[in-house]
Amino acid sequence: MISGTTTLIAHLGYPTHSFKAPLVYNPWFQERGIDAVVVPMGVRAGDYPDFFRALFSLTNIRGALVTMPHKVTTTELVDDLSPTARVAGAANAVVRREDGTLLADQFDGTGFVRGLLRKGFDPRGTRALVVGNGGVGSPIAASLAEAGVGALGLFDPDAAASRGLAGRLVEHYPELEVGTGSADPAGYDLVVNASPLGMGDDDPLPVDVTRLAPTTFVGEVVMRQEFTPFLQAAQARGCPVQIGKDMLYEQIPAYLEFFGFGSATPDELRAVSLAEDA
Amino acid sequence: MISGTTTLIAHLGYPTHSFKAPLVYNPWFQERGIDAVVVPMGVRAGDYPDFFRALFSLTNIRGALVTMPHKVTTTELVDDLSPTARVAGAANAVVRREDGTLLADQFDGTGFVRGLLRKGFDPRGTRALVVGNGGVGSPIAASLAEAGVGALGLFDPDAAASRGLAGRLVEHYPELEVGTGSADPAGYDLVVNASPLGMGDDDPLPVDVTRLAPTTFVGEVVMRQEFTPFLQAAQARGCPVQIGKDMLYEQIPAYLEFFGFGSATPDELRAVSLAEDA
Repeated sequence: MISGTTTLIAHLGYPTHSFKAPLVYNPWFQERGIDAVVVPMGVRAGDYPDFFRALFSLTNIRGALVTMPHKVTTTELVDDLSPTARVAGAANAVVRREDGTLLADQFDGTGFVRGLLRKGFDPRGTRALVVGNGGVGSPIAASLAEAGVGALGLFDPDAAASRGLAGRLVEHYPELEVGTGSADPAGYDLVVNASPLGMGDDDPLPVDVTRLAPTTFVGEVVMRQEFTPFLQAAQARGCPVQIGKDMLYEQIPAYLEFFGFGSATPDELRAVSLAEDA
Repeated sequence: MISGTTTLIAHLGYPTHSFKAPLVYNPWFQERGIDAVVVPMGVRAGDYPDFFRALFSLTNIRGALVTMPHKVTTTELVDDLSPTARVAGAANAVVRREDGTLLADQFDGTGFVRGLLRKGFDPRGTRALVVGNGGVGSPIAASLAEAGVGALGLFDPDAAASRGLAGRLVEHYPELEVGTGSADPAGYDLVVNASPLGMGDDDPLPVDVTRLAPTTFVGEVVMRQEFTPFLQAAQARGCPVQIGKDMLYEQIPAYLEFFGFGSATPDELRAVSLAEDA
């Protein structure tokens, strides 16, 4: 129950309609008697830097969850970046530390990789394609590199985004084979849609699914529906898949610790959350 | 249940600990299936103008409830003021209209006077003393003037605040007898504490209660406890009283209409609210 003593976690992004975090965290806070609330705040890109600074002038703000389109911009607005956020060039969580300074971290990639491992897919030595190299795709690529993939294909309609990410990756992982410029999924063990394609009604599929091998593991970040048209097409070809929400659930324990609210397992969180029904 | 489609009403003030509005509105919204939430936001005076402007860049903000110390400043930050807010020189509610412009209004005084009338005290022709002439006292004085009091005594440690309010009152109500500079409650039919005295543990009483006649009606705005030390002292002298929460409850139907969420009676709101227990 929100009262005058409640600590705020802002959920920053635009548009807000598909936000799932309030449905995951708030029932959890309530069940555990944690006096905090995740509040969705719709902020357009042009308004973000000013809003972000003003937000952290609040006396009852603890931190923020950051989603599209602000994950990259956030790295320029904080005092410190975690190593993962620095490689990713993007952040999805900000905490105000005791001394008032802001630290940004990045848990999307961690959550994505944890989900793969839980499903028995170990990325070590595999070939992975990440389509969409912005605020979600960059941390997934960073975490896949950290998890030991052998080769990484990067594709984004904004070729400069792919090249920038490729540069940061090879700088940190000199052994990694990195290619850019093609969304052809043939020959990959893992294909990830980290683009917004699938959020709109008439979006094209992110890759040519006729080129997907049935053994390729297919991951998704779009959470508009559990099985997006892309995942449905992959499943029709026999591919094992990971839905967008799994990335969300798998990263939540890391967030809770980051904000200083203890921890929880994904299964505990699923048990109290309303996101499954939403 | 807060989700990505939820409309925000910010509750702006500092400190936030004694905020009651979230406990009143949020259970009501939930019971009526209104997808909105009142979120307490602690803002220090120096941060307020920047935060206020940034807040209304959010895509899911409908408006704000404004409390101390921002009620006066708010009048300078909006596009339009209601007549009551203009006379009061203070606002306690802001709505973003369809065209994007901000309108501020003031319901404290309305709530206070509605509460008096409900208790059988008609201010018409009476002599009233308002102690504290800032963001709460000014609108109460304005609404008492509108309700037809014959004489109004104003007292504030900041004498300029009293004189400014007196000037706006006589400008709008030339028949009204207005005096400033004394907190002596003798000779008044109605005495109102509209100062923050009573919010702290060791605060002195706002007036010399030994000078209160038993027939004087005594009103309070402090909501830290139902019967403040001032109200307890007044009751000990036999005075009828109005507690701070009554002003809050009586103004809520006006707020709900202002924000476009329909309406409700104070008794309906009390029935679902948690503020009584808080």
